[in-house]
Amino acid sequence: MATLTNRRITLAARPEGLPEPRHFGLDTQPVPEPAEGQVLLQTLYLSIDPYMRNLMDPIGPGYASPVEIGAPMVGGTVSRVVASRNAQFRTGDLVLANAGWQDYALSDGSDLLALGDAAQPSQSLGGLGMPGFTAYVGLLDIGQPKPGETVVVAAATGAVGAIVGQIAKLKGARVVGIASGADKCRHAVEELGFDACLDRRAPDLAARLAAACPQGIDVYFENVGGEVFDTVLPLLNLHARVPVCGFIAHYNDSAPAPGPDRLPRLTATLLQKRVRMQGFIILDHYGERFDTFRREMAGWIAQGQVRLREDMVDGLENAPQALRRVLQGQNFGKTVVRVAE
Amino acid sequence: MATLTNRRITLAARPEGLPEPRHFGLDTQPVPEPAEGQVLLQTLYLSIDPYMRNLMDPIGPGYASPVEIGAPMVGGTVSRVVASRNAQFRTGDLVLANAGWQDYALSDGSDLLALGDAAQPSQSLGGLGMPGFTAYVGLLDIGQPKPGETVVVAAATGAVGAIVGQIAKLKGARVVGIASGADKCRHAVEELGFDACLDRRAPDLAARLAAACPQGIDVYFENVGGEVFDTVLPLLNLHARVPVCGFIAHYNDSAPAPGPDRLPRLTATLLQKRVRMQGFIILDHYGERFDTFRREMAGWIAQGQVRLREDMVDGLENAPQALRRVLQGQNFGKTVVRVAE
Repeated sequence: MATLTNRRITLAARPEGLPEPRHFGLDTQPVPEPAEGQVLLQTLYLSIDPYMRNLMDPIGPGYASPVEIGAPMVGGTVSRVVASRNAQFRTGDLVLANAGWQDYALSDGSDLLALGDAAQPSQSLGGLGMPGFTAYVGLLDIGQPKPGETVVVAAATGAVGAIVGQIAKLKGARVVGIASGADKCRHAVEELGFDACLDRRAPDLAARLAAACPQGIDVYFENVGGEVFDTVLPLLNLHARVPVCGFIAHYNDSAPAPGPDRLPRLTATLLQKRVRMQGFIILDHYGERFDTFRREMAGWIAQGQVRLREDMVDGLENAPQALRRVLQGQNFGKTVVRVAE
Repeated sequence: MATLTNRRITLAARPEGLPEPRHFGLDTQPVPEPAEGQVLLQTLYLSIDPYMRNLMDPIGPGYASPVEIGAPMVGGTVSRVVASRNAQFRTGDLVLANAGWQDYALSDGSDLLALGDAAQPSQSLGGLGMPGFTAYVGLLDIGQPKPGETVVVAAATGAVGAIVGQIAKLKGARVVGIASGADKCRHAVEELGFDACLDRRAPDLAARLAAACPQGIDVYFENVGGEVFDTVLPLLNLHARVPVCGFIAHYNDSAPAPGPDRLPRLTATLLQKRVRMQGFIILDHYGERFDTFRREMAGWIAQGQVRLREDMVDGLENAPQALRRVLQGQNFGKTVVRVAE
């Protein structure tokens, strides 16, 4: 064990705006030895998610501490137990972990979920993991779509959006996606079963969204913010629900956004349409709902009712670039870094 | 009857910004004769409420049609039945009605509520009527304050704010008001029982609000918008609730508000604090809850647990100026125009 080294990708400097390569460091450390009660984990797959950008800011997003300068970036992983001094885990076990952007990490086992002999373990970072759970809780608990209602979701082929749309279809809703480019839009309709998907970059999005939602919008699952939100707002129906899971369009803002001030128009819409807009952080919900979600989602996947697409990147050293691509909406499917076989 | 005339205050022109005298007309018409099934109503008290400004715009607020040019302004009234061809009402009956800004009006009875021999019938335009019901539904159904939580409300001595604060106290919450001027703040604390009330005009509102809410804010009852909302936002606690009943600060906006854009900061707060923000229009709730509200509120008033203050204006001709005062926050209590004895 002493001959192995642990590569870590660290936060080297705090970005303003989109992270650049200089904001990340790469160092190597000796692989740590597990103490009594601990396991040593080797990272197989690292999840890349938009929230990671927020943890690079000096003041964290409130639900998690910022990454310290010089510390490894945090992140969810599928890891293999390579040494165990914890009776609950054996060498060779596959687990869902929070090992971060590095080859090896220690855990006391309390944050691990045993994955058994999962055929495609990286799915536990996507549709069967945090992004899928985010879609499930936000859509079902806050959005509450009813059969025949219209659900709109942006980043429609992304890790969360693709699941939001597919669950909404299972619940009998009409689903309209918004995505970047014709390939993603085709995928959303042909593979994921969306009723329509609009290219965010094509001109006149507002008119096309209105045409695609002839009955208005009952649920808008907010995961992007920005311009898409402005096109959705006038189409919201009476008693519409807007679960807010993110607003990636603004994560890289380094200064207050210029005017006009869009808040009065939002408030007017909330009032006139009796809209409920509610933020949620998925970390709050693991205790009560994660097991139910995993069981139900595994069934949907097994029956082909929910399809998952991965955007696989090889090599830990490519994680920074993968995060940049996610923040710019260039990923096509759930972004996962393959760190080791 | 033919010798009586009906004075009407009409919408003469659509204002941009605050309504001026020239936006209103005053005409006289013959008093109409009730047809079979109708009653003729004489207006005793006319309610003056912020929503009336919205009905002066060419595009209505969504929950009601705009007033047409030349038509009388709409409004809730306490009226007396002066002639009846409807078996449900007799001459002399006092009713809650929607007779608008005029001396006389006809009704088929379907929108009337018999007030019996109410000692202070004008209360049915305030604490016992639409503003009180707005406070009751918004605070209890959406705000859901728990004992020990902190509730903040602006326009704290206004028709809605005063009731919000007093009901919140009855539910065991800490209540902090915001109002314009020392007199109103003193009234909120000494007469209405608020724990604190801050003068909106004094410098450094944000710091004073933070000091008055050492445990943060759990419920913010939004009825003003504007600057007050900005001071509240950073103080919202996890899982805070924001019922939205109005945003009077923006009713007179004649153009999109200048920047900075405050929407990204709101979205970030909703997300990080898991806030629920929900608009409501009180018209939706009469069917299910108004009777319960009237019974419960009448009990609170009778027992001195809720105190009502009226801002009484004499003379129908002074209604336009009364609306201007309400829109500028110059009223002190529920504004009512005494149209006839």
